[in-house]
Amino acid sequence: MNYSIIRKILGVVTQFIGAFLLLPAVCGLCYGEKQCIVYFVLAVVYFVIGRLIAMRKIKDQAFYAREGFVVVGLSWIVLSVLGAIPLVITKDIPNFTNALFETVSGFTTTGSSILENVEGLSHTGLFWRSFTHWVGGMGVIVFILAFLPMTSGYNMNLMRAESPGPTVGKLVPKVKETAKILYMIYFGITVSELILLVIARMPLFDALCIAFGSAGTGGFGVKNSSCADYSMLQQGIITVFILMFGVNFNAYFYILRRKAGEVLKMSEVKAYFGVVAFAVITITINIRGMFPSVFQAFHHAAFQVGSIITTTGFATQDFDQWPQYSRALLVGIMFIGACAGSTGGGMKVSRVLIMFKTVYREIRKYLHPRAVTNVTMDGKTLDRSTLHSVSVYLSTYMFIFVFSMMAITMVESLDLETVFTSVACTFNNIGPGLSKVGPTCNFNMMKPFTKYILMFDMLAGRLELYPMLMLFTPSVWKKGF
Amino acid sequence: MNYSIIRKILGVVTQFIGAFLLLPAVCGLCYGEKQCIVYFVLAVVYFVIGRLIAMRKIKDQAFYAREGFVVVGLSWIVLSVLGAIPLVITKDIPNFTNALFETVSGFTTTGSSILENVEGLSHTGLFWRSFTHWVGGMGVIVFILAFLPMTSGYNMNLMRAESPGPTVGKLVPKVKETAKILYMIYFGITVSELILLVIARMPLFDALCIAFGSAGTGGFGVKNSSCADYSMLQQGIITVFILMFGVNFNAYFYILRRKAGEVLKMSEVKAYFGVVAFAVITITINIRGMFPSVFQAFHHAAFQVGSIITTTGFATQDFDQWPQYSRALLVGIMFIGACAGSTGGGMKVSRVLIMFKTVYREIRKYLHPRAVTNVTMDGKTLDRSTLHSVSVYLSTYMFIFVFSMMAITMVESLDLETVFTSVACTFNNIGPGLSKVGPTCNFNMMKPFTKYILMFDMLAGRLELYPMLMLFTPSVWKKGF
Repeated sequence: MNYSIIRKILGVVTQFIGAFLLLPAVCGLCYGEKQCIVYFVLAVVYFVIGRLIAMRKIKDQAFYAREGFVVVGLSWIVLSVLGAIPLVITKDIPNFTNALFETVSGFTTTGSSILENVEGLSHTGLFWRSFTHWVGGMGVIVFILAFLPMTSGYNMNLMRAESPGPTVGKLVPKVKETAKILYMIYFGITVSELILLVIARMPLFDALCIAFGSAGTGGFGVKNSSCADYSMLQQGIITVFILMFGVNFNAYFYILRRKAGEVLKMSEVKAYFGVVAFAVITITINIRGMFPSVFQAFHHAAFQVGSIITTTGFATQDFDQWPQYSRALLVGIMFIGACAGSTGGGMKVSRVLIMFKTVYREIRKYLHPRAVTNVTMDGKTLDRSTLHSVSVYLSTYMFIFVFSMMAITMVESLDLETVFTSVACTFNNIGPGLSKVGPTCNFNMMKPFTKYILMFDMLAGRLELYPMLMLFTPSVWKKGF
Repeated sequence: MNYSIIRKILGVVTQFIGAFLLLPAVCGLCYGEKQCIVYFVLAVVYFVIGRLIAMRKIKDQAFYAREGFVVVGLSWIVLSVLGAIPLVITKDIPNFTNALFETVSGFTTTGSSILENVEGLSHTGLFWRSFTHWVGGMGVIVFILAFLPMTSGYNMNLMRAESPGPTVGKLVPKVKETAKILYMIYFGITVSELILLVIARMPLFDALCIAFGSAGTGGFGVKNSSCADYSMLQQGIITVFILMFGVNFNAYFYILRRKAGEVLKMSEVKAYFGVVAFAVITITINIRGMFPSVFQAFHHAAFQVGSIITTTGFATQDFDQWPQYSRALLVGIMFIGACAGSTGGGMKVSRVLIMFKTVYREIRKYLHPRAVTNVTMDGKTLDRSTLHSVSVYLSTYMFIFVFSMMAITMVESLDLETVFTSVACTFNNIGPGLSKVGPTCNFNMMKPFTKYILMFDMLAGRLELYPMLMLFTPSVWKKGF
């Protein structure tokens, strides 16, 4: 393991988090809140410490996949710990475990909260909380890759470890350029949402936070009621944008390049909108009786489906009160998640699609033992190692899921629905679950042990399992490795 | 598709079910119950009809894997329908859907029941119900293979479609001999249990039914209280035997051949007893406070763990009332199931073990990209196609699971725990679940649609998915296929 390079990158990450803290500091200044001083001071402290660490010389340039995984795993832990400190010092969230839970939930774009009263936080704290979603959505390492001169040799290993989806498609030959384009698209759509929300008369502060939350598919709101008190128009805008952020960003790249036709050929995007349409229509029928008009039922079905499948986690309705079919379907789409290459979490539509096709091929193979059967996606044949890694991903996913549930039930006496959905909604980076962790509830009542398990799940879910598993593989830390 | 051969085998199956009905008929005769007449008459009718069907000439000897799958799927449906008819005619279970549910549950060795009052049934009915477990445990087709002269060409395709586990190991070179040895072992252990139970002063009728139920890892009892009213000694005997029936039968074959040393090398058997020991110890600690002594807590923990992991489903305690950890762990081991090559259901220990090893290899591959990493089992390297089929099995399993849950929530308004565990306990062929389908409850309150979904799950679980999926693949039924 090349420790010197890991140290250097962690130093850079620390500098960046210092820079990130300036934004909430400025926001606090506008509102004349004294909390902003803490953010300013910490920004300087982090920057200086990070600079000192990053300055030390790298002994060895070797950078393999394992260093990529380890550095990404550690970066996200450093990020969360450093991000939690201002919340503790300003007493917005005085308990460290709770503050860490909130920050992990923020950076991983989960949106599960331990706050009983969101509106009790300072504007500075609320802004920081929502901003973590935006930072975490596209990924910190991708951000660093985009804006920092680094030896190109290890770019790809870093990006592969942080980016979601079964395959990492470079949009352009250079990793650095790819990262820049991704961040430009991300920035552009976020600003569009912000402008539209302001035009729809949402207060600027709310609009900013909601735009951050939907861009990162996070889900932290600034109201206790999440999005229930916004107007239908505002909710409609949010619905459209969360669905947009769940689309594979390659689609937007094609549109930028005036190749919109290519988008229609992307089977993942088609499947994604297919699932959304199916869920919205059947849930609308299922909840029809609870609303005065079909349109309202459709409006709320679309918002909740969009919010859950993209793993955002905003809510306009307490869907824990909906009929069983709607509740179960929402839990089902929690697992599917958004497209690969989007800011959303979950297992990713493409993985589910590949698995589905693999299963179908298996049946066909029994029927026609001598036929050549391949799994294709977007017209290309997928090679065996991709298929294999998708299956293994699914198994790893299930093992972590089951172990988390077991660990939690050892210390908590909650009903199984609560335990199941609290793992499901943190591991898939969604936010609210059902029953005691439903949209009107929070995670505060859980024991610290449970919170740390769920934090692990959030990080494992966001970083697609392996970086976090590596950190807990003893042989990684053996000397001379 | 070779229809003539399928017809012939279905004819043979019909003859066999006629023969099977003679046993409960004799039992009814002993008790002087008039129901026995129905069983005698039906036995003759089935035998004659089956003979007529089987007599017709086979046009074509071609018999491939697809014919194997289809014939096994259809055989089990025929078996269940014909087995339900006497229950309806004798008015033991007057409703056909309910009778079919009970028979499917019997043959698939699930043990989920729709009966509110088990003790209200005639002895003939109770005997038949338990005997279906014994027949279904080892498999009907295996039985036919063992005792009927058939062209050897298609033996293997039939056995592969019906036998559980990722690979079918022939014990001896000839399929027919393998089937015979398996049935001998099966018969031998069942008789041993029967004798021990009678020595422990259990009434002969109860002992017979319980022995059938534990041999097939079924779970139908003859008392409303399942096994709660039997003595500690009797419960202890049952515990030992259900655990024995969950072991890969190859182990007994080794012991017969005086190669007991080989058994200790079987990693699946080691893993199976490892999981059992872990579950029994932690549950004993967890439920300690509910019992007067540690021994009693251990006794009931061992019974329930044995009953659930082998997918039998007997109960001495209402484990739905146990603390959350025990409940969750029991649900967890529902999915693991027994060893491959045993009479138990679930995903099978060897599959879970292979998946676990594959995941570990994946992590190692990231760490040492150039190292040769193989997955080994019992000292042998597993080839890629085995690994692949295990992963695909897991995905197929998950898809069926999710679809079943969705379908049920569309028509029922039950809590998710009930829906989840009712799919889990039928699909894994266990019997009782939690909440409204807990050990003291039954499936009678469900709608007919739900019952048919659960019947599909039971059959799919018992026949390891593909035979049932084939029946619903339209291209299988196309002309000229």
